[in-house]
Amino acid sequence: MTEASGDVAQRFLYLEDLHVGQRSTTRTHTLDESQIVSFASQFDPQAFHLDAAAARDTVFGGLVASGWHTASITMRLLVTEGLPIAGGLVGRAAEVSWPRPTRPGDALRVESEVLEITPSRSSPDRGIVKVRSETRNQRDEVVQILVATMVVPRRPGAREG
Amino acid sequence: MTEASGDVAQRFLYLEDLHVGQRSTTRTHTLDESQIVSFASQFDPQAFHLDAAAARDTVFGGLVASGWHTASITMRLLVTEGLPIAGGLVGRAAEVSWPRPTRPGDALRVESEVLEITPSRSSPDRGIVKVRSETRNQRDEVVQILVATMVVPRRPGAREG
Repeated sequence: MTEASGDVAQRFLYLEDLHVGQRSTTRTHTLDESQIVSFASQFDPQAFHLDAAAARDTVFGGLVASGWHTASITMRLLVTEGLPIAGGLVGRAAEVSWPRPTRPGDALRVESEVLEITPSRSSPDRGIVKVRSETRNQRDEVVQILVATMVVPRRPGAREG
Repeated sequence: MTEASGDVAQRFLYLEDLHVGQRSTTRTHTLDESQIVSFASQFDPQAFHLDAAAARDTVFGGLVASGWHTASITMRLLVTEGLPIAGGLVGRAAEVSWPRPTRPGDALRVESEVLEITPSRSSPDRGIVKVRSETRNQRDEVVQILVATMVVPRRPGAREG
């Protein structure tokens, strides 16, 4: 992901190519029980993420995905099908909330919107972009809201001008 | 993770057992290149997370872990060695930032502090607790700051009183 030029550059979006209100939507990713348990075994080993029977007696009343799993699936969808930012999706910070849990069988998609674009004062070759991404399930319910602060390069030509 | 009683209850912390300024520290988890690449292949397939050679030409100058990987490892350390909250660690929202990248060989630990404790008005059996967790590497540099908003149950006896 070095600075692209020519035809290749046309495929990536630089700071100048973004505008507030710009939207994108990904395809869906369907979660099953084995994915939920596999992620949780590695990163969030709690009863409500590991075992459907044990999860019935918890606050969730059944197996749910780790919020960090939902966040990671969201990142996967954004990387492979979200806005093709030049240099990649480089996050500096994020605010994330999980208004409702993700359960086995949920088909998740991500809908994003550019909220703010701020050219950097200290680094004239880049800017900071805030993007809000809602992760929705097959019933169109929002399972995660992510507001990510990303570093986005300016187009190389613009830099020299 | 149902409501515990007797001896078992003593092992878990309820809302009444927490206080602002309460701290905890985990052991370390050492990341290697294969863990970084394995996570990224599933959830964040970008050059700077996937391939050490290709990563040299990116903004990071070498292989770095996905921020969501750092967040997931932090969760693992908090679940297994952080504050043993009754009913488990149930996050409603989180603010996360990554002041510097995590690289292969980094040994991460998490230092947490309770920031705020707010009994719920609508649900008298629980409260909302904000916990700040710094993830630090072997040079004591902060690689992630997480402020998590969690739901914590009140002690069952207190509820009835």
